[in-house]
Amino acid sequence: MTIKIQIITPHVTPRPHKLKEVESVAKANSDVEFSQTNIAEGPSSVEGSFDEGLAGPGVVAACIAGENAGVNAVMIDCMGDPGLDAAREAVTIPVLGPGETTMHVAATLGHKFSVVTILDRVRPLLERNARAYGVHDKLASVRAVGIPVLEIEKSQDKLLEALTAESIKAVTEDHAEVIVLGCTGFMGVGDVLQAALKDAGLPVPVLNPIQTTVSYAIMLARLGLRHSKVAWPSPDLEKGIKGYAFLTEGV
Amino acid sequence: MTIKIQIITPHVTPRPHKLKEVESVAKANSDVEFSQTNIAEGPSSVEGSFDEGLAGPGVVAACIAGENAGVNAVMIDCMGDPGLDAAREAVTIPVLGPGETTMHVAATLGHKFSVVTILDRVRPLLERNARAYGVHDKLASVRAVGIPVLEIEKSQDKLLEALTAESIKAVTEDHAEVIVLGCTGFMGVGDVLQAALKDAGLPVPVLNPIQTTVSYAIMLARLGLRHSKVAWPSPDLEKGIKGYAFLTEGV
Amino acid sequence: MTIKIQIITPHVTPRPHKLKEVESVAKANSDVEFSQTNIAEGPSSVEGSFDEGLAGPGVVAACIAGENAGVNAVMIDCMGDPGLDAAREAVTIPVLGPGETTMHVAATLGHKFSVVTILDRVRPLLERNARAYGVHDKLASVRAVGIPVLEIEKSQDKLLEALTAESIKAVTEDHAEVIVLGCTGFMGVGDVLQAALKDAGLPVPVLNPIQTTVSYAIMLARLGLRHSKVAWPSPDLEKGIKGYAFLTEGV
Amino acid sequence: MTIKIQIITPHVTPRPHKLKEVESVAKANSDVEFSQTNIAEGPSSVEGSFDEGLAGPGVVAACIAGENAGVNAVMIDCMGDPGLDAAREAVTIPVLGPGETTMHVAATLGHKFSVVTILDRVRPLLERNARAYGVHDKLASVRAVGIPVLEIEKSQDKLLEALTAESIKAVTEDHAEVIVLGCTGFMGVGDVLQAALKDAGLPVPVLNPIQTTVSYAIMLARLGLRHSKVAWPSPDLEKGIKGYAFLTEGV
Amino acid sequence: MTIKIQIITPHVTPRPHKLKEVESVAKANSDVEFSQTNIAEGPSSVEGSFDEGLAGPGVVAACIAGENAGVNAVMIDCMGDPGLDAAREAVTIPVLGPGETTMHVAATLGHKFSVVTILDRVRPLLERNARAYGVHDKLASVRAVGIPVLEIEKSQDKLLEALTAESIKAVTEDHAEVIVLGCTGFMGVGDVLQAALKDAGLPVPVLNPIQTTVSYAIMLARLGLRHSKVAWPSPDLEKGIKGYAFLTEGV
Amino acid sequence: MTIKIQIITPHVTPRPHKLKEVESVAKANSDVEFSQTNIAEGPSSVEGSFDEGLAGPGVVAACIAGENAGVNAVMIDCMGDPGLDAAREAVTIPVLGPGETTMHVAATLGHKFSVVTILDRVRPLLERNARAYGVHDKLASVRAVGIPVLEIEKSQDKLLEALTAESIKAVTEDHAEVIVLGCTGFMGVGDVLQAALKDAGLPVPVLNPIQTTVSYAIMLARLGLRHSKVAWPSPDLEKGIKGYAFLTEGV
Repeated sequence: MTIKIQIITPHVTPRPHKLKEVESVAKANSDVEFSQTNIAEGPSSVEGSFDEGLAGPGVVAACIAGENAGVNAVMIDCMGDPGLDAAREAVTIPVLGPGETTMHVAATLGHKFSVVTILDRVRPLLERNARAYGVHDKLASVRAVGIPVLEIEKSQDKLLEALTAESIKAVTEDHAEVIVLGCTGFMGVGDVLQAALKDAGLPVPVLNPIQTTVSYAIMLARLGLRHSKVAWPSPDLEKGIKGYAFLTEGV
Repeated sequence: MTIKIQIITPHVTPRPHKLKEVESVAKANSDVEFSQTNIAEGPSSVEGSFDEGLAGPGVVAACIAGENAGVNAVMIDCMGDPGLDAAREAVTIPVLGPGETTMHVAATLGHKFSVVTILDRVRPLLERNARAYGVHDKLASVRAVGIPVLEIEKSQDKLLEALTAESIKAVTEDHAEVIVLGCTGFMGVGDVLQAALKDAGLPVPVLNPIQTTVSYAIMLARLGLRHSKVAWPSPDLEKGIKGYAFLTEGV
Repeated sequence: MTIKIQIITPHVTPRPHKLKEVESVAKANSDVEFSQTNIAEGPSSVEGSFDEGLAGPGVVAACIAGENAGVNAVMIDCMGDPGLDAAREAVTIPVLGPGETTMHVAATLGHKFSVVTILDRVRPLLERNARAYGVHDKLASVRAVGIPVLEIEKSQDKLLEALTAESIKAVTEDHAEVIVLGCTGFMGVGDVLQAALKDAGLPVPVLNPIQTTVSYAIMLARLGLRHSKVAWPSPDLEKGIKGYAFLTEGV
Repeated sequence: MTIKIQIITPHVTPRPHKLKEVESVAKANSDVEFSQTNIAEGPSSVEGSFDEGLAGPGVVAACIAGENAGVNAVMIDCMGDPGLDAAREAVTIPVLGPGETTMHVAATLGHKFSVVTILDRVRPLLERNARAYGVHDKLASVRAVGIPVLEIEKSQDKLLEALTAESIKAVTEDHAEVIVLGCTGFMGVGDVLQAALKDAGLPVPVLNPIQTTVSYAIMLARLGLRHSKVAWPSPDLEKGIKGYAFLTEGV
Repeated sequence: MTIKIQIITPHVTPRPHKLKEVESVAKANSDVEFSQTNIAEGPSSVEGSFDEGLAGPGVVAACIAGENAGVNAVMIDCMGDPGLDAAREAVTIPVLGPGETTMHVAATLGHKFSVVTILDRVRPLLERNARAYGVHDKLASVRAVGIPVLEIEKSQDKLLEALTAESIKAVTEDHAEVIVLGCTGFMGVGDVLQAALKDAGLPVPVLNPIQTTVSYAIMLARLGLRHSKVAWPSPDLEKGIKGYAFLTEGV
Repeated sequence: MTIKIQIITPHVTPRPHKLKEVESVAKANSDVEFSQTNIAEGPSSVEGSFDEGLAGPGVVAACIAGENAGVNAVMIDCMGDPGLDAAREAVTIPVLGPGETTMHVAATLGHKFSVVTILDRVRPLLERNARAYGVHDKLASVRAVGIPVLEIEKSQDKLLEALTAESIKAVTEDHAEVIVLGCTGFMGVGDVLQAALKDAGLPVPVLNPIQTTVSYAIMLARLGLRHSKVAWPSPDLEKGIKGYAFLTEGV
């Protein structure tokens, strides 16, 4: 049986190269098939609660469409996990956010972890989520490199330099023992960063949120596990929704 | 100067009688003018995260429209506070959720409070919010009467009976000293419930979320206070949004 | 109906000019009447637990006298909230401490707030209260300007400079998004500080504890709310008190 | 060298028989001398925050007098620890509250402990203190026997029966593994209760707050330890106090 | 490349049939090879801290031997995770405890989970671990069926009945939304229990600790992740160990 | 009656001079008799979880032997408290760890305390224990001097200098008000450090873990208190242990 995992990018800027980021996972799991999709309507990138709010309905719609198309599990492609709770109510397949998933995995690899993200402005949001997810006690700090999402790909060198500098501070000043890359747009840098930190005398694991989350989704699918329907009960769709044609057509 | 407060009902079922619930507040604050509006698109009622996710963009749109129309502060008319963070980023006037506001006011009136709400299924959501709002230590319990939103108004007697029974358990078993009505659809029952509890030997304040929240909004408006723009920075609207005509037209 | 709010200064140094600090609130609430009183016996200023312990009985006495004289709500004029619990047991009108009130209001205006106070020696006391009030999770830090209470008024320039410096550190180093003035003797500086921080690129609200607390008292009075008598039950006065003539004569 | 320990009863009802309760401790520590004193002014018993507030100044005065008379350490004879922080600022000898001391000792004898006290109305106060003392995580519950302080001695049988019943519930329902007697007026019952619980198949230690606290005071005195003056700095007595002759005469 | 996972049973009673419990995992992961081993010296079963203490050195020895033999990751076969920290220092391959792993996975499948275990006496130990692992906020309760380890296999019917009864209470009384089987000796019952709960109207996932933990180990191995050596630094073996021949021979 | 206290050093390097460290305690308690013993098998020093794991069984064996020989209470001579839980199950006399004991005593002498220990690598372990012991809220920080256990005695000057520097930072930067010496190998330096801090204007108590813990043990012995057998129930020794001759011979 093939396991189908879909990456749902919660904005409208095309991101087909996300599939490149999971090639190593595909190689290690020959029975898994990955696909990527963007949401139908929403913002151009996600850098705060406003963007998240507009991304949510599109995520729900994509999850419903994915479930209908036979996808086995989906991953929301953003560390803020927009639409996570709503989507879990809407479908019965596992819906994974890289924020929740990667923070819990990090929590099992050290006593404390830090998240190194894009901009200072998303720190409160990530800290609030860590609290909601029950891993706040293990979060040493949230640090930011100060580079907006849409500029990440233009400045890989600057990005790597900033990630290394902030990660070193996270370990030596904040006492983190694990580093979580705090943006799913930080692609192709995890292994290089981990090597750079090791060279600096800091042998800490660096978690790539996309790779970690799809691997976790595969694990759940193989175990036959899904989110609790007592925790996220199905919504009453009979009572009616006005607008949101892109969503209701899929229901 | 007149202070304009708008109640934004985060679903599409008309709720003009919400203005009746604030008549006592209007009487006590002669310089305040209330208005009520529904969101343009979204669910028929809010009873979970799915409904909240679809309500969020409409709340943001209504807040932007309200700010443009000279409203001084808005209240989101639902205990789950859908769209709260997104709307605070989008505007600079105070945006108040009755969940956050009423729980903090309750926290100042006793050592512990309980929220008595509609259905068991919203308990996790309210507990998660209490944690995010930093008042979880003061929350004795969340209890439910087991009546869906759209049936509340048909069964006031049954509602009052259930509210009284659950509130008594909250005080005697969970050690609450303050009761928060856990649904903004629980109208016209706060005073009766408070009297019933007093008759039962339990002199505890009962907080009406609509009245408490609009009064808090008036207080902030008079003090010239608004939410921190360091906490909820303005979104970058230049980068573009696809769809959401009902929102982007207002920007 | 006129709402009568009394400011009880919990030491014996005359402070009639406290009424000047609430003039803006009086203007915005034409039906409110303010008065100020000192306690009958106690210390010359409040800068620690010893002073607070000696201030407590006088606060209780003043609250009883205030209630007897028809006052609708009282505010204890000190961030340490001396006598708060005792006074709430003694009377049935709302008794407000600026420490508890301002910290809860700050908690609703940002994810994290800092308190900037007079001396390092009161930090443990304010932190302990934040814990007791259930808002400790939202407290980024307590910082001090290093100026004793009785010298504040002589050195407004030095005060403002120190408040600005510590507030900037609170926002940039401790990640506060709201500033609470941590002494009710910090008069006439809130707006200037807020403007100075905005000029420094930090658009954070600055909470004036006196203005915030009396406004909150007015809100409670208008809503007909008071502290829970299950939380602060009336004391048994029959069993007798030795001494404290200034208090027992009022009972 | 003789170690002098003084028990300060924070109300005005004579309690010379407190010395009987420490006879076993005196026997085990032949170089220790106990004395007992009441405060000069205050309530007849302590059953809430009002009583505590009026007891505080008398406790401070007695501590100052004790230090001046060469006492090596004092214990405040009430589980609510009235006047504790103020007295620690006022003197340099150790000042111990049985609430703080016994809860910390209990925390080292099991994973969780319960406090069984007099009346439900002091539960919030004891819970708040547990939070302030940093032992709240180890507190399984606070339970009450429903007997006021001044009636305890008249009804030893009823007391023991209620203590046994509530302690059994604390162990079997709340998962406590240690019982703290929650009132210093519960004299002569600790050993009987411990035996009764053992007979019921529950081999849990029962802590007598007076005996535990004076023993802890002796330990500190022998180790030459005292409370941190950075935590409780000496008050500025030069700035003046109005009234409180019973205290200021001692300074 | 074959991934080799070893199950280390931390006592000396043979448990070859543990491999039967992972057959479904082996089927879903064709490139994985499982082995099982017991520790060389230690107790006959693990039912408390004494047993855990004696199991620890054997677990460390088995982990060293496993690493030397080319095993890719090991799982300690007991919910109390005996020897976990020591073994993580001793080797560089991932060492997984089912307690830590299953509780973190459960935390991602619902807001709250309960652990249903063998005996009441291990509850404090599991709660302490949940606190150390940073997932205590998500733990609704630890419940016990009251059957010792070595009798589990003799009484499957009684076990299933008790597991069902306690799980129903965990969901309806303690508000758990996910059930964790709290003993790795509870074999072959997870799916039946999940079905029984679904039939009772409680659609909650039931986590089998062995299957979940080995699947997590496979995920880590495929991702190339291992525990942080900053968190669990290698021990200084040069300084010498007396005794423990079964361990030092392997070093 | 003589009270017999035994110090169990949890490694195999002889430490008879530990008895010198308790001479002042012996002098203050003329009816107390001290002895010291090393464990039979285990590591040469304890500097992490691996060492702790190998020390545990020896600690248990020594506690059983001590109880059999009529010892009244034992202290495990290491701040990490290796073998604590296991030993408490194995015997009925009090078993004290200096980590747990000294942190709780420190918690009663100030609002916050810091632990200054040997190496950074034990910080996570001490923080985890603080969390398990329920005193984490009062722990300001764990700092390290960077000197391994077996070099401490060779470099007393360097040690004292580093202890002073880190303690000053703990008080001024981390807001500690009490210092706990974080290694039982830090002998003969407590009083000097306390004096040095006082000279630096920081009048904070410095806790010597050995002296504090044996004094606490004496206090418990005199009060007739021991650890709860509900918390640490006796192990079932009938079911059998393989190996561990040094332990089972003593049972």
